[in-house]
Amino acid sequence: MMAMNETHNPELRSWVASANAAGTDFPIQNLPFGVFRRFASAEPFRVGVAIGDQILDITAAQAKSLFSGDADLAAQACCAPTLNGYMALGSLAWSTLRLALSRALREGYALQSALDTCLVPQADAEFAVPAQIGDYTDFYTSVHHATNIGKLLRPDNPLLPNYKWIPIGYHGRSSSIGISGQDVRRPVSQVMRPGASEPVLAPSARMDYELEVGIFIGPGNALGEPVSVQRAEQHVFGLCLFNDWSARDVQGWEYQPLGPFLSKNFASTVSPWVVTMEALAPYRQAWTRAEGDPQPLPYLDAAELHAQGAIGIELEVFIHSAAMRAQGLAEHRLSHSNFRDAYWSVSQMVAHHTVNGCNLQPGDLLGSGTQSGPAPDEAGSMMELSKGGKEPITLPNGEQRTFLEDGDAIVFRGFCQAPGAVRIGFGEVRGTLLPARPLA
Amino acid sequence: MMAMNETHNPELRSWVASANAAGTDFPIQNLPFGVFRRFASAEPFRVGVAIGDQILDITAAQAKSLFSGDADLAAQACCAPTLNGYMALGSLAWSTLRLALSRALREGYALQSALDTCLVPQADAEFAVPAQIGDYTDFYTSVHHATNIGKLLRPDNPLLPNYKWIPIGYHGRSSSIGISGQDVRRPVSQVMRPGASEPVLAPSARMDYELEVGIFIGPGNALGEPVSVQRAEQHVFGLCLFNDWSARDVQGWEYQPLGPFLSKNFASTVSPWVVTMEALAPYRQAWTRAEGDPQPLPYLDAAELHAQGAIGIELEVFIHSAAMRAQGLAEHRLSHSNFRDAYWSVSQMVAHHTVNGCNLQPGDLLGSGTQSGPAPDEAGSMMELSKGGKEPITLPNGEQRTFLEDGDAIVFRGFCQAPGAVRIGFGEVRGTLLPARPLA
Repeated sequence: MMAMNETHNPELRSWVASANAAGTDFPIQNLPFGVFRRFASAEPFRVGVAIGDQILDITAAQAKSLFSGDADLAAQACCAPTLNGYMALGSLAWSTLRLALSRALREGYALQSALDTCLVPQADAEFAVPAQIGDYTDFYTSVHHATNIGKLLRPDNPLLPNYKWIPIGYHGRSSSIGISGQDVRRPVSQVMRPGASEPVLAPSARMDYELEVGIFIGPGNALGEPVSVQRAEQHVFGLCLFNDWSARDVQGWEYQPLGPFLSKNFASTVSPWVVTMEALAPYRQAWTRAEGDPQPLPYLDAAELHAQGAIGIELEVFIHSAAMRAQGLAEHRLSHSNFRDAYWSVSQMVAHHTVNGCNLQPGDLLGSGTQSGPAPDEAGSMMELSKGGKEPITLPNGEQRTFLEDGDAIVFRGFCQAPGAVRIGFGEVRGTLLPARPLA
Repeated sequence: MMAMNETHNPELRSWVASANAAGTDFPIQNLPFGVFRRFASAEPFRVGVAIGDQILDITAAQAKSLFSGDADLAAQACCAPTLNGYMALGSLAWSTLRLALSRALREGYALQSALDTCLVPQADAEFAVPAQIGDYTDFYTSVHHATNIGKLLRPDNPLLPNYKWIPIGYHGRSSSIGISGQDVRRPVSQVMRPGASEPVLAPSARMDYELEVGIFIGPGNALGEPVSVQRAEQHVFGLCLFNDWSARDVQGWEYQPLGPFLSKNFASTVSPWVVTMEALAPYRQAWTRAEGDPQPLPYLDAAELHAQGAIGIELEVFIHSAAMRAQGLAEHRLSHSNFRDAYWSVSQMVAHHTVNGCNLQPGDLLGSGTQSGPAPDEAGSMMELSKGGKEPITLPNGEQRTFLEDGDAIVFRGFCQAPGAVRIGFGEVRGTLLPARPLA
């Protein structure tokens, strides 16, 4: 796991004034990567790093020879419309460029006036999915989510016997992963309505979000060559926010025996900024198990894991319905949870995924699975908050929800804080549910 | 669906003599596409078309200006290391180039001597996966397979209630799809042995193949825009043979509740040649249902489908164990089945996959699912042939098999025949099971 270094120093201040503002997601200690261009321009997408309310255009800075040596080589890999090439370089290169960026954006940097011309306001930018995602795998790492969902389906036996042994995962759809801000059309699919004897084709009536952390893979592994749990984080570039939109009624009818399919593959949404594993170093926590939980098999266990295998990321879900927007009301927080409560760590996901020789590639995305915490208000989906649709939630304007309604905007935010470290944030991932296409 | 035309005329003969030989998979009526280079050369992979025991190098032929007009434009899209660009063009372009190729390879072609220099013997070539596969989806279209497997798990209730309503499918792993001839290492993974109270990490002891047809997507659809069952085949480029290697013990322990994962994602193998939908036109058959099977929902039903929704492809599985090879014995046919017996058609797979707006892209691969037929010797997996490992199969040299042993080579072949048409074949997909990596 990444060690702390000078880039994490909470005393650092940037010559980009907005990066020093209280509450910014993007202080100089963060430096997340994304892919952007000026809004509605025809220019190609390019790699940028968030600093305060600005974006540092790495291609522009590299062209001005503002990096040297290994940092320049790393920056060259960023001169592309996706982060895949940079993700492939590995942690030494990432760390070298991060240090160079940290020094160049600090107060007192000699070439500030040259770098200043490489800034683009975030408000003027549009974003793309940060990498070309070859394969997307969704895990199921929250034992609280698995238990909550299991209780709705099997009250006597909520958690399946494999859960505490295997980081359960399945393959998802890459092509329909979009970027924050893309609206999501309510899918039409085949559903079996309660009490019906035959299914119908209909718009989903149980639309949901799933509050997830997205994990971008850095260097891959060759087919047939597992990655050990000890080495696993060397293969991880960074984390983002991830909404794995779900149609619960579709899922219920289709998922036996091979798992979710049309209930998930119509859309997933990532946040623009990928917070690097190095930036997350100050927020690592011990990875613990409850009394009675089984000892993981050796391929899923490591001393480093127990010391700091968890990552403290506070996650929040907000809703902003069409009526709330029309009434000028603010977004309403539906729930919150923390990624430290995941039963399985990032390194365990990677080690399990590859133990059979499955090859990961730079830019692959792992979803953490819905992150629910132990308390009732820490549920990461509407399905859980409304107890399977039986207990409606009341919004501040009196609207009620069991599942999502057309026009609802769902926003996830995330941030990290720890003693002796500044607060860093993930920005947001946002999407609005559009009405279904008319049936033909 | 593609109509018959002059390229299907059984009287056509090629100036490539081996294409006229009895029993060849690649007569002039076939013309399947693949990606090849001279064996062990450093040259880039390139698109070729099989003719007899030769490959026509399309890039070389295009460079010699042997095509004109729209056929030349189509051939230009083949001047690439994958078929994705050509697959994206659609059926009008495919049909135009096919006609040009058919005429150029016929006896009497005026420029035969120029084209002759563009031939490479198949025996001198190595092959690559024909397309960059963005997403791979595996279906489950054989009701016989689903019933056989279901009987092993749920003797009283073998077929789940959704089976005859939904073309069941799930997402698989793209990165580990390889080409015929690549060996497959027995995966190590977590398994729960019969009677054990705790799982162990171990090499799979229940290794299996799955006899499938692979379906390459041509032009994609935009996110949110379904493809109708009537238009579905316009989005299909062609078919190949596909072995979806499976570790049954891993699958049994991991698959609840989200489906197969490590039991499948260590390797899948495609055949080098993709037989186009146009080449398959003479082998179309009526798509029928048994008495009592439900009427498909309208989005899965069409008049064309009933007339000729099925495709008659005879599929065969051969085993060649290490001992058989050492003894000089021929391959032994384990089973055979026919793709016409699939419960769901290619067009129904595409229509279902996209009905929720999921976007397909050129080069995406759909697996048909294991193709088992109604008779006991028509089982498409060892799991079925050995009744879940309870009834060993005896090979010609006296060896017994319940599942695959290290060193076993598995070969699939496929061919089509119909009255008034020549026989065309798919070549083969071959892989040998290697021993597991030593446990650390």
